[in-house]
Amino acid sequence: MQGDTLLIKSGGAAALTEWQHHFARLMPGLRVYGWDDPFVDARNVKYALVYQPDHGRLAHYPRLRLILSAAAGVDHILADPALPTDVPIVRMVTEETRERMSDFVTFAALAIVRDMPALVTAQRDGRWANDLTGRLARDTRVSVLGLGELGSAVAMRLRANGFQVNGWARTPRLLSDVNVFAGEAQLDALLTETDILVNLLPDTHATRGILGRKLFAQLPAGASLIQVGRGVHLDRQALLDALDSGRLRSAVVDVFDIEPLPPDDALRGHPKVLVTPHIASTVSYAARARQVADVLGAHLRGAPLPFVYDAARGY
Amino acid sequence: MQGDTLLIKSGGAAALTEWQHHFARLMPGLRVYGWDDPFVDARNVKYALVYQPDHGRLAHYPRLRLILSAAAGVDHILADPALPTDVPIVRMVTEETRERMSDFVTFAALAIVRDMPALVTAQRDGRWANDLTGRLARDTRVSVLGLGELGSAVAMRLRANGFQVNGWARTPRLLSDVNVFAGEAQLDALLTETDILVNLLPDTHATRGILGRKLFAQLPAGASLIQVGRGVHLDRQALLDALDSGRLRSAVVDVFDIEPLPPDDALRGHPKVLVTPHIASTVSYAARARQVADVLGAHLRGAPLPFVYDAARGY
Repeated sequence: MQGDTLLIKSGGAAALTEWQHHFARLMPGLRVYGWDDPFVDARNVKYALVYQPDHGRLAHYPRLRLILSAAAGVDHILADPALPTDVPIVRMVTEETRERMSDFVTFAALAIVRDMPALVTAQRDGRWANDLTGRLARDTRVSVLGLGELGSAVAMRLRANGFQVNGWARTPRLLSDVNVFAGEAQLDALLTETDILVNLLPDTHATRGILGRKLFAQLPAGASLIQVGRGVHLDRQALLDALDSGRLRSAVVDVFDIEPLPPDDALRGHPKVLVTPHIASTVSYAARARQVADVLGAHLRGAPLPFVYDAARGY
Repeated sequence: MQGDTLLIKSGGAAALTEWQHHFARLMPGLRVYGWDDPFVDARNVKYALVYQPDHGRLAHYPRLRLILSAAAGVDHILADPALPTDVPIVRMVTEETRERMSDFVTFAALAIVRDMPALVTAQRDGRWANDLTGRLARDTRVSVLGLGELGSAVAMRLRANGFQVNGWARTPRLLSDVNVFAGEAQLDALLTETDILVNLLPDTHATRGILGRKLFAQLPAGASLIQVGRGVHLDRQALLDALDSGRLRSAVVDVFDIEPLPPDDALRGHPKVLVTPHIASTVSYAARARQVADVLGAHLRGAPLPFVYDAARGY
């Protein structure tokens, strides 16, 4: 690998120094350059670690062997119309991603169980709302849409907190103590058994806009939403209408179709909504660099690569 | 027990109807009256279920056999200078109390790990704070002061979420996967090993004001506090100073020496503090009525009573 180049577009100039620091230790032979470095020789670029790469750029590297997503999703890469079709794309899934997502969704689910949006609003209005006693985790049904790497870890953690957990996957599977519903045909049944809906689906043709009017109407009145999937899953106006009509009681929303969320967006400051700035599973540079080093090591040994994007499945 | 009277001061007139509804089913022979009912014959009052009873009133019932606290603490009863000294006081500890407290402290600890006070402030100021990525539960040391019924349950739940858990008790004990420190002599050592301090101590002479300048100065810089014990444990000015100096990073405070917390209190709206209105472990009337029925059943059978206040220990 001596002389091989890893090109990075993730986190800007300050982050590049940190990436280089980690790779100098993990893979001393690797040359690591920033995305816009004028001294890069395009013929040496074998690996690209990217978030939202400029369209057309990845097609410029004739010896590109691997595209590594800097995030768990790959939609930000697939958006490139000139994307090379013969280069594998590897999703960024680390043990830390699973832990962070589990921490966040458990936080969000307990915040909903204890009616935090309403408590914060009461607090802001100067009302001592000790009538807002909420409910118990163990009396609450949480349904996790998407039982991949993240969804499965989240489901297990929710179980450890006593929640009753349902899951929805493309195909049937077994998951300890989780009631699994599979395929389009069983989605309706799942939704009627849901107090809190957690979206962890990948961005595919089948899932875009899934969090919309039809789905919200199928949830029991007073249900809540935790949106930690992709921004394109959510019809924001449908969510606002469902909150205003009382169909939904509350929501925690971490991802948006437009980021940063505009300051005047109706979700910001909504009394029933907790908005967070896409931080549910932001993983440290150290952990991501370790993961990239593991993937490059497997590639160099000719071993199978983990977390490769599958165009047929759509994730 | 036919003709025995249970007198209730807990939750006001609306709550009395609910208490009576539950006791009619659980103990049909019991006569259940509200605290200020003029038709109560004082000689028939054998049981009193109370929160903050008017001073001197409990001494008026010559055949009073049991005082049942409507809450986990008993300080609101001990404050009565004319309290009969020969009547056992039973604390209200139910399975639901443990579950609710575990839900709340886990919520609060994860909120602190993910820097929620700072995220909410950034959100209010219109800043997209995706640099606030927080840390991981499994990298965070939580120390639980008080390993009684509630503290032990909380410690176990925190472990199930991956936190590193320390505990502090009056006397040494074993608790699975929890690093237990015992007695005054080991408090200093515990505090230096603490990222999040959870107060679940009872209100005794030894614990009053314990959350003060001396203790805060012993915590690592950037530690956080979860105050779910009793209001009298906390020196509020010391907390404000520790937050403003940066010694403490954040706090979740549910109990106060004055409740409701006055609208102009400095903790309200403080950018590093999440204030909740004493709802961490508010238990349903149904669960408390069941617990009272169990205690009265044990009393009538002459069996040992659970959760009796011990004046020598102070809780």
